[in-house]
Amino acid sequence: MTMTTDHLTTLHRKPDRGRTDRAELDAVLDAMLVGTLATVVDGEPWAVPMLYARHGDHILLHGSTGAGALRHVGAGAPAAFTVARIDGVVLADHLFDHSANYRSAVVRGNLEVVGEDEEWDALIALSERLVPGRPAEVVDMTRKDRAATLTLRLPIRDGRWIVKVRDAGAGPAGRDPSAWRGVVPLAEVWGDPVPETDLAPGVEAPASVQGLRGARS
Amino acid sequence: MTMTTDHLTTLHRKPDRGRTDRAELDAVLDAMLVGTLATVVDGEPWAVPMLYARHGDHILLHGSTGAGALRHVGAGAPAAFTVARIDGVVLADHLFDHSANYRSAVVRGNLEVVGEDEEWDALIALSERLVPGRPAEVVDMTRKDRAATLTLRLPIRDGRWIVKVRDAGAGPAGRDPSAWRGVVPLAEVWGDPVPETDLAPGVEAPASVQGLRGARS
Repeated sequence: MTMTTDHLTTLHRKPDRGRTDRAELDAVLDAMLVGTLATVVDGEPWAVPMLYARHGDHILLHGSTGAGALRHVGAGAPAAFTVARIDGVVLADHLFDHSANYRSAVVRGNLEVVGEDEEWDALIALSERLVPGRPAEVVDMTRKDRAATLTLRLPIRDGRWIVKVRDAGAGPAGRDPSAWRGVVPLAEVWGDPVPETDLAPGVEAPASVQGLRGARS
Repeated sequence: MTMTTDHLTTLHRKPDRGRTDRAELDAVLDAMLVGTLATVVDGEPWAVPMLYARHGDHILLHGSTGAGALRHVGAGAPAAFTVARIDGVVLADHLFDHSANYRSAVVRGNLEVVGEDEEWDALIALSERLVPGRPAEVVDMTRKDRAATLTLRLPIRDGRWIVKVRDAGAGPAGRDPSAWRGVVPLAEVWGDPVPETDLAPGVEAPASVQGLRGARS
């Protein structure tokens, strides 16, 4: 039942679960909505969950310009961004070999502040990740909105990331061939949209909302 | 669309989303299976996703005794453990106010190695978290299994954790009252069990597997 540990970006444990193709990193990053940004503040670990979007060779993050810690990491501090999702539990025929199917990634680097010339595109990319198609449906951000937003990006550089995936069954019978073995999948599934009760008459759920159905891959 | 940042355990941004009741921390920790353990190695941030279980006043973690980084954090290094789950996307009538419903927690402290006298209980608690009821159904761990496992725990101490929850609608109409506003919920849902194809004849899915149905809270 071990989802073990990597020392920085070197894969010491269970190297068969490591993936080295950049496309696999992108697939894992693009499958999730939230990750954990970790950095070091006064020698102590600091970590915070954040929405994000991969956009080309960057992980985009954003927050309020009033958030002191974001300004700190925005100033070039080394950071590690982690995502993980459990895709199922794996039942073996004895306790020690129980496990989980999962996808995870850690990207290391130094955060950069996204400058004004690129910030608009970055914020749209973040919005598209959360609700695809929504930016084109609604009133856009204003300059004032943008001024209140600190947008950061973490470059995805060769040798500075690690991806691990387990996507397999329980394996052959072990200590008790009479026991059930197998996988119970766990998926992220969209529920029915919940409109605000005070919508203007006749306002229907737009295409972006209609698109959020079924399981997220 | 901002899920902002906390400087260490102090809640500077959107304090209305912070929860101070220990029971709310436990509820958030107990709702998830995977988190991110962050620490500092040679002055650099280090982070890895890990399965975990809250067990009383501790967060339990485990890995292989062969994992060097786990030994490092086990030796008392300061750590931050983060969990986060997106419960839905929140659509406003203009882009800037889009958001997400979520539950998140960060617990800070110094990891301890769980000693032999308590390790058995800790490993059972971890297994129960992943698949409730499974430990009683299958062949137990051996002493050798346990010797191959490094079990760590992070104490949950007053003032060293932060919980944030957003669980609300889109709020009142803003810049465009003609636009749809509302929430699209996102849930974790168990799929149908997938047995190994070589099970002995007549082996049925046990109670633990039958219990993994529907949405996880």
